[in-house]
Amino acid sequence: MKTFSATFLPENKTVSAVKGKSLLEAAAVAGIRINSICAGDGVCGKCRVLVKSGKVTAKPNMFLTRREIQRGMALACQTYVAGDVIVEVPLESRTGGAPSLAPEDAVRYGREAERIDEEARLLRRPLSRKVYLALPPPALDDALCDQERLFRELRRDQDIPVMQMGLSTLKLLPGILRKSDWKVTVLLGRRGDTVEVVDIQAGDTTGRNFGLAVDLGTTTLVAHLVDLCSGKTVSTQAKYNSQAPFGEDVISRIMCAADPKRREELRELVVADINDLLGALLIDTGARAHDVTYVMCAGNTVMTHLLLGLDPSNIRRDPYIPSVSEPPVIRAAEVGLGISPRGLLAVLPCVASYMGGDVVSDVFVSGLAASEDISLLIDMGTNGEVVLGNCEWQVCCSASAGPSFEGGGITCGMRATNGAIERIDLGPGGDVQQCEVVGGGKPLGLCGSGLIDLVGELLRVGCIDRKGRFVHDVCGTRLRKDETGALEFVLFASDDTVLGREITLSEADINNLIHSKGSIYMACECLLNHVDMSFADLARVYVAGGFGSYLEVPKAIRIGLLPDIDHDRFLFIGNASLQGARMALLSEDALTFIREKIGGSMTYLDLSTSHQYMNEYSSCLFLPHTDLEKFPSIAAENAPTRPGPS
Amino acid sequence: MKTFSATFLPENKTVSAVKGKSLLEAAAVAGIRINSICAGDGVCGKCRVLVKSGKVTAKPNMFLTRREIQRGMALACQTYVAGDVIVEVPLESRTGGAPSLAPEDAVRYGREAERIDEEARLLRRPLSRKVYLALPPPALDDALCDQERLFRELRRDQDIPVMQMGLSTLKLLPGILRKSDWKVTVLLGRRGDTVEVVDIQAGDTTGRNFGLAVDLGTTTLVAHLVDLCSGKTVSTQAKYNSQAPFGEDVISRIMCAADPKRREELRELVVADINDLLGALLIDTGARAHDVTYVMCAGNTVMTHLLLGLDPSNIRRDPYIPSVSEPPVIRAAEVGLGISPRGLLAVLPCVASYMGGDVVSDVFVSGLAASEDISLLIDMGTNGEVVLGNCEWQVCCSASAGPSFEGGGITCGMRATNGAIERIDLGPGGDVQQCEVVGGGKPLGLCGSGLIDLVGELLRVGCIDRKGRFVHDVCGTRLRKDETGALEFVLFASDDTVLGREITLSEADINNLIHSKGSIYMACECLLNHVDMSFADLARVYVAGGFGSYLEVPKAIRIGLLPDIDHDRFLFIGNASLQGARMALLSEDALTFIREKIGGSMTYLDLSTSHQYMNEYSSCLFLPHTDLEKFPSIAAENAPTRPGPS
Repeated sequence: MKTFSATFLPENKTVSAVKGKSLLEAAAVAGIRINSICAGDGVCGKCRVLVKSGKVTAKPNMFLTRREIQRGMALACQTYVAGDVIVEVPLESRTGGAPSLAPEDAVRYGREAERIDEEARLLRRPLSRKVYLALPPPALDDALCDQERLFRELRRDQDIPVMQMGLSTLKLLPGILRKSDWKVTVLLGRRGDTVEVVDIQAGDTTGRNFGLAVDLGTTTLVAHLVDLCSGKTVSTQAKYNSQAPFGEDVISRIMCAADPKRREELRELVVADINDLLGALLIDTGARAHDVTYVMCAGNTVMTHLLLGLDPSNIRRDPYIPSVSEPPVIRAAEVGLGISPRGLLAVLPCVASYMGGDVVSDVFVSGLAASEDISLLIDMGTNGEVVLGNCEWQVCCSASAGPSFEGGGITCGMRATNGAIERIDLGPGGDVQQCEVVGGGKPLGLCGSGLIDLVGELLRVGCIDRKGRFVHDVCGTRLRKDETGALEFVLFASDDTVLGREITLSEADINNLIHSKGSIYMACECLLNHVDMSFADLARVYVAGGFGSYLEVPKAIRIGLLPDIDHDRFLFIGNASLQGARMALLSEDALTFIREKIGGSMTYLDLSTSHQYMNEYSSCLFLPHTDLEKFPSIAAENAPTRPGPS
Repeated sequence: MKTFSATFLPENKTVSAVKGKSLLEAAAVAGIRINSICAGDGVCGKCRVLVKSGKVTAKPNMFLTRREIQRGMALACQTYVAGDVIVEVPLESRTGGAPSLAPEDAVRYGREAERIDEEARLLRRPLSRKVYLALPPPALDDALCDQERLFRELRRDQDIPVMQMGLSTLKLLPGILRKSDWKVTVLLGRRGDTVEVVDIQAGDTTGRNFGLAVDLGTTTLVAHLVDLCSGKTVSTQAKYNSQAPFGEDVISRIMCAADPKRREELRELVVADINDLLGALLIDTGARAHDVTYVMCAGNTVMTHLLLGLDPSNIRRDPYIPSVSEPPVIRAAEVGLGISPRGLLAVLPCVASYMGGDVVSDVFVSGLAASEDISLLIDMGTNGEVVLGNCEWQVCCSASAGPSFEGGGITCGMRATNGAIERIDLGPGGDVQQCEVVGGGKPLGLCGSGLIDLVGELLRVGCIDRKGRFVHDVCGTRLRKDETGALEFVLFASDDTVLGREITLSEADINNLIHSKGSIYMACECLLNHVDMSFADLARVYVAGGFGSYLEVPKAIRIGLLPDIDHDRFLFIGNASLQGARMALLSEDALTFIREKIGGSMTYLDLSTSHQYMNEYSSCLFLPHTDLEKFPSIAAENAPTRPGPS
């Protein structure tokens, strides 16, 4: 069989490939991970590559235009080596790379949350803490057994009602006590309502104790290595979730995990991701894996199930029941995490199938549940979550917003990584006047905040009407028909983009965004109606989510994603999920607050059974809304388009 | 190499053995377990066999008389196959066989203990209990997660503050709940201060739940299979401890276990023994291993350490510190026990290095710790334990009595199995007037109670004086010199015994017993002196231990083993250790009582540092005592011998 060389750019990595091997397979051999949600069936269109030179054969597909194919664009899974080839793999088609990291100070806290965070750092009662003990050696008149001697000293200064010690630690205890001349460091770990003597070390090792706080996102994993002695985050790393090829959203992950073998595969992938993050953090800081003693994860209910190897099937079956809301604290090694072999793994509690530990964490960090003022919290993502309440009560619901906030389902959509347009201003006729690109340089595509900006601007300059349809007269030559005859708006010509591919927006793209923003807004209205309140009654509206800190309030209000209230009342709290995990790791009190005042007390409202939701949802499918009275500041503008039918 | 046949009697089992193989090795191949404490070094003399026919070669040894060798007696480890041989292995040389079982009703309870036992049976709160639940299926307005739904139902009728559920059970939960139409049986297991959801089974399996109560003796293991639904013991089995070849007493076991490999070997042996008992119990009752959900063991501190694989080394090193007094409850499978894979293993708490869970169990069963009356409890064994106290306080100590109560260190000593003389009456000159043999028939040797009887009778008829020396004039022809010139008393001529070997008693034998009884009596006196009391102040004297129920009070008083008080105040409680384990298994309250009112509150007095003990010990090395005023009933008898020097 003939063998050719396949070279991948920009890495310039060459591997040999037998004739007929797909570019996707050859890339895998080269260690280059290409996005492929359909696992090579040619139906997701996510594995676009650019064949720079060489001979290939290809199956026909619906994802590429004739022009694109002529320029060398190809689906890696449907294109086969037929000679020596050179292929460029664009950023947008890659998976498993490192997403760009929002700086830690991008997370902003509510007033109460700042206090809690301060307390967490000051209290120094981390979930895993080391205590140095110089034990009085036993004598005939003080002949307590080794374990009780240890417990007696541990309890001298603190009240630990239920203390446990496993057999394997117990087996090592007598030897360590005597070899170290009764001077030992005890590692205490919180396990639910009990405290475990997790490990015993000779001498004083109290100076070395780290915890890992992980935001277990469906798309992105972010981890802090936290010094549990000083309370400081010593390093941060992020990574795309390697489960992505099994489905971009939680629903497709659930479907995939119905097969126990696949479920195990998914578990191994996310564990490997966390281990990768850990490895990078250890290299970065010089810390040792053995000194990392606790992992605290905040994730949605599905990711939490997948991490622990629990079957998430019933989460998507009526009446949507998770296996567990507050999973047990386990030995991290039990799932394969490479921290200290005795170290523990905990996850923040969930509230319901579509209300996970990530949102509970958001609520904690925002301070919503610590104040008497009633506020609203919106976590925008593929699965949007909304929480309303204060320190006495919270009611929450979720809304399936779809992937458009993360650039999914959008012709030129992409994640908020290098090349993504995150802000844009348009002039008359839709000409680009200003454009901010993540990482600078030419644009590659549109991330969520860029898309919201763009649609808001198109509406403002009159290129689209309130139903999201293009207005021919205004768009002019920027509007054209694609191969199927559908209209598309050309934002950037091919010469102005990174890959030489036009950046366009279709009516279908706009429609996707309208459905996303509509479901979020409607969820907020439903919660407020449920308690007979309105947006005007809110002290604060907290906005969480990876793209939160890039979002511009006026433009989000313009399309009807956020309510039309005083801009000062909005607070973007950024990736609060991770910060909540960090604070829980640092403070037993924080975790107790999260468990008892949030996780255990929040009421979940199922919108799928709410008639109001179904009836009024369509009212939100306008820009910003059918009822312009809800958006007085927009109505006051001299809107150039006519309102659609109400 | 030449190969011969070796046949072992009475099994009549033949194996082939190459020339030069020892009879001990050949017997092992035949599956016949011969006692060998020195592991074949020829220094313990315990592996006596009778070569009936065939050619053997043998190394010289110090254990057999010329006459015995002429009759075919040989040490199996020092005797080698040199032709086809037929060998009889006497009972006394066997290990690992089934000891004779005292019937359950041989255990007698104190008044309070009877009440506790009754309560244990009535309360039906076993450490492992099954609860049948028909759960309300989840609905949109009752969307609790599976685990909380279960916990809610479990907590409906009972207060379980700290409830835990492991990940592996949690993984199975959703499937079982739905497959069984929300009708499940939950197995709840007590683990220290928490309750674990140990297992979930589809449908109603509450009718099948068994526990194993084990008396973890140094010499003998006895187990009850207890029906945890009815509270009844359905079967009992006993077995010699297979660790015996590594040492007969706890001290030699500790020395052996200093080597981690040997320690693991010892652990495996005792686990295999419990599994053997379990197997026999299951065959006997038709129960299934899967339905055995809890094992409760009562053993001395050393056996407890060995079962759990803990290093017992520090138990025998000053200041005598065990690793743990109250070991954690673990998964029984963790040590290799073949009950339900999810089942639990607990052990009764110890008090000190030489005050184990077996004695704690004795104290519980006797009722000593439940009454306001002050009583004394004596557990007679190689390691003797004495406890003094009532419901408000207990003080205890241990005394190294040596193995003579179990027939050890005595020329013709043996365990209380078939052939052992357990009672004997002598006439003038030491003629045997009456003799009771375990299992009937001709005698084989002397067990502990037989030895006590014999020495008491020899003293009564004047064959020995109060220092335990033979009185020539009285013994007459029954007295002779052995090969070393030492005096021995011939109790039975060779024709009157099972193996055709004389049953004799030497002054060294008598001396061993005197030291044993002296250390027990002195321990009792020390405890009483410690609290400024005397025997006369005691409401009861409880006597525990395997031979307890065979012991005759007047004869035990005569040699000074038991104090000279009103016979009605003695109560033999038999193998109470096992009964305590059974009652703990059946009742959380019983276990709590044992943990809090006995294990956790008893004060251990170390006699090795007590000057009084050292000084007065020698006063007890007379029959019954130097100070006859302590034994008025004996003094009142017309003692035929003169008192020794005081």
